[in-house]
Amino acid sequence: MRVIGIDPGTYNMGVGVVDWRDDALSLAHFEVVSPPKTAPVPQRLHDIYVRLVDVVEKWRPEAMAIEQPFAGRNIRSAMAIGHAQAAAMMVGARFGLQIATYAPSQIKQAVTDYGASSKDQVQAMVAVLLGMGSENIPPDAADALAAAICHLGAERASTLTVL
Amino acid sequence: MRVIGIDPGTYNMGVGVVDWRDDALSLAHFEVVSPPKTAPVPQRLHDIYVRLVDVVEKWRPEAMAIEQPFAGRNIRSAMAIGHAQAAAMMVGARFGLQIATYAPSQIKQAVTDYGASSKDQVQAMVAVLLGMGSENIPPDAADALAAAICHLGAERASTLTVL
Repeated sequence: MRVIGIDPGTYNMGVGVVDWRDDALSLAHFEVVSPPKTAPVPQRLHDIYVRLVDVVEKWRPEAMAIEQPFAGRNIRSAMAIGHAQAAAMMVGARFGLQIATYAPSQIKQAVTDYGASSKDQVQAMVAVLLGMGSENIPPDAADALAAAICHLGAERASTLTVL
Repeated sequence: MRVIGIDPGTYNMGVGVVDWRDDALSLAHFEVVSPPKTAPVPQRLHDIYVRLVDVVEKWRPEAMAIEQPFAGRNIRSAMAIGHAQAAAMMVGARFGLQIATYAPSQIKQAVTDYGASSKDQVQAMVAVLLGMGSENIPPDAADALAAAICHLGAERASTLTVL
């Protein structure tokens, strides 16, 4: 199974594509989509949408896992996160992908077995799990890869439950 | 000038297209986009996006005015409004429209000269301003038409200031 993970942001959208085949995780692709900082919100969202369409067309994931932060922040930042999530979800729906959202604590737990891990720990563990050097993964892409790994874990768990 | 107004919602997205020509307002089009209630959020957003693309391609507005509610609500509803706004903004950016957001109080004031008007009053005044029977306008479409009228008022005001 191939999953695209998304760490939503309208300035930096983390994207990570991970495969689960023959009982092993492997990296397919990662990037951070960063539209021009000075562009207005609608243009940034459009740029992100267009780029994600290209990524999905190229890498053909079967599912999308989106980080879904909640509470603790203010209304304005919730709306901004909503904007970024929407761009990702619309690409997922356009291609008929299975779409799941995960809380940051679920994602951290999936890669580090500990819900309150730091950004650095997530980055390091993602690198270990995918057999990469961690210095090569930007933090937003690491979070996106972690979201994809989290979804693959949930899929495997639900398969195991069924069997 | 032709403006498309948007009252954002992921269940009911109000859409209204209004013209300002020869010192007069006139109605071009209105509708409420209502994806299946049982569809998941990504699918509803995608449906709205696809329908808005059709509307913009057909009616060719030059600008988009989006109602931007703020504060007073909780984080979850702010995110949902953010999702709906994003779908509209991405269509606006795709077609290179000028995009403006207005607070509900600004929009109400533009059509009723009173920021705290009720939904019914907005509906009635929009009908009067566009020379229609108010019974024909669903509330979400009336709010969208009011947003478009608000933008046209702001455009006219800024033109007057320049002259």
